[in-house]
Amino acid sequence: MPKIVDHEKQRKMIAEATWRVIMRDGLEKATVRNIAKETGISVGSLRHYFASQSELLAFSMQLVSERVKERMSALPFSGPPLEAVKRFLCELLPLTDETRKEMEVWLAFTQKALWDKGLQPLSKQVYEELRSGIRSLLEALIRLGAVNPNVPIEMETERLYALIDGLAMHGIMQPHQLSSQEIEAVIDYHLRSIFYETVRKQ
Amino acid sequence: MPKIVDHEKQRKMIAEATWRVIMRDGLEKATVRNIAKETGISVGSLRHYFASQSELLAFSMQLVSERVKERMSALPFSGPPLEAVKRFLCELLPLTDETRKEMEVWLAFTQKALWDKGLQPLSKQVYEELRSGIRSLLEALIRLGAVNPNVPIEMETERLYALIDGLAMHGIMQPHQLSSQEIEAVIDYHLRSIFYETVRKQ
Repeated sequence: MPKIVDHEKQRKMIAEATWRVIMRDGLEKATVRNIAKETGISVGSLRHYFASQSELLAFSMQLVSERVKERMSALPFSGPPLEAVKRFLCELLPLTDETRKEMEVWLAFTQKALWDKGLQPLSKQVYEELRSGIRSLLEALIRLGAVNPNVPIEMETERLYALIDGLAMHGIMQPHQLSSQEIEAVIDYHLRSIFYETVRKQ
Repeated sequence: MPKIVDHEKQRKMIAEATWRVIMRDGLEKATVRNIAKETGISVGSLRHYFASQSELLAFSMQLVSERVKERMSALPFSGPPLEAVKRFLCELLPLTDETRKEMEVWLAFTQKALWDKGLQPLSKQVYEELRSGIRSLLEALIRLGAVNPNVPIEMETERLYALIDGLAMHGIMQPHQLSSQEIEAVIDYHLRSIFYETVRKQ
C-alpha cells in the first residue's frame, strides 16, 4: 500500500512544517497559506491532506503527544524509586531543547483549544492520559513501599499534575527566572515530601 | 486636566474592548482592525491611543494584572491562617466567572509574550510580582507560627506558585475534569501539608 504510506508521510511532513511555523512565528501565523509556503506545496494540495486548519493543528498536536508517549514508554522503571519517577516526570518538563520546543507548541495548542472546538476532544484526551499516567506513577511508588498507601491518591495526583504543568509553564515563560536545575530541584523536593522518611534519605 | 483623564478613559475603554474580542473570538482575532470595530472608533483614532497592537495588548494585560492586585490588596489578612491564605490564593484561580475570564485572557497574553517581545517585560514583571506575593504569604505563615521557619522558603515558593498556575491552567482548559471545588480542595490539602500538625487540625 505505497499510496497510504505516502499519504501518512505527507501528513507528518506537513505537521512538522506546522510545528516549525508555530515555533518561529507564533500560532497566529500557522495559517493554511503559511504552512503551504513552508512545505513548498500548494494550498490546494495541502487541503487534500487536511480539510481544515483545525484538522491540521489537531494532527500536529497529536504528533507531539505521541512523541512524548513514545519516549516515556521507552524508559525503564528501575533503580531507586525517586530516580525512576523523576525520569518519567522530566519528559513532561521543558528541560532540554527538544522538550522545551514540544511544550511551547503544546501550550500554544491547548490555549488555542479554548476557542477552537475542533481541538477540544484531543486536548481533553491528552489531559486525561497524562493525569492517568501520573496516577500510575504514584501507584507504582505505593507498591514499591516508597509512598504511604493511605495518601489520598486523587489529591496527590491532581497536586503533582498541576505542579508539573505549572513548572513547565513557568520554565517556558520565564526561562531566566526558573532554570532547568531549579525545576528539577522542585520536583525532587516535592517527591521527597510525599516519600516515607526512610526512602527520603536515600 | 480633562484631556488627560479622557485619554486614559479612552485607553481603558479600548483595553476592555480588546478583552471582549479575545474572550469571544480568541487572541488571533485581536487585531487593530477588529478592536477598532468593537469600540466603534476608526483604526486611525485607535492608533492615536496605541501606536501598535503590541502596545495595546500590553496595556490590556496590565489592566488585568491591576484588577487582580486591587482585589488582593482589599482582602484582610485575618482569622485562621489557613483561611486567610486561601482567600488570597483563590484570587489567582479560575473559581468565579470573573477570575476565569481574567485567567483565560491572561493565559492568552503570556502565551503570546513568547513570541511578542513587546509583551515580555510586562510578563516578566507580573511573574515576579506574583512570585514575591506568594513568598510574602508563606513568610506571613511562618511569622504566625503556622509553618515551620526551617522550611526552604525559595523551594516552597516555587512549589506553591507552580501549583497555583498549574491548577489555574487545568481549571481553564478542562473545567469538566477539574471543578472549582476540586481546585480549592487541592489548595487546602497542599497548605495543610506544609502547616504544623497543630494548625492542620484547626
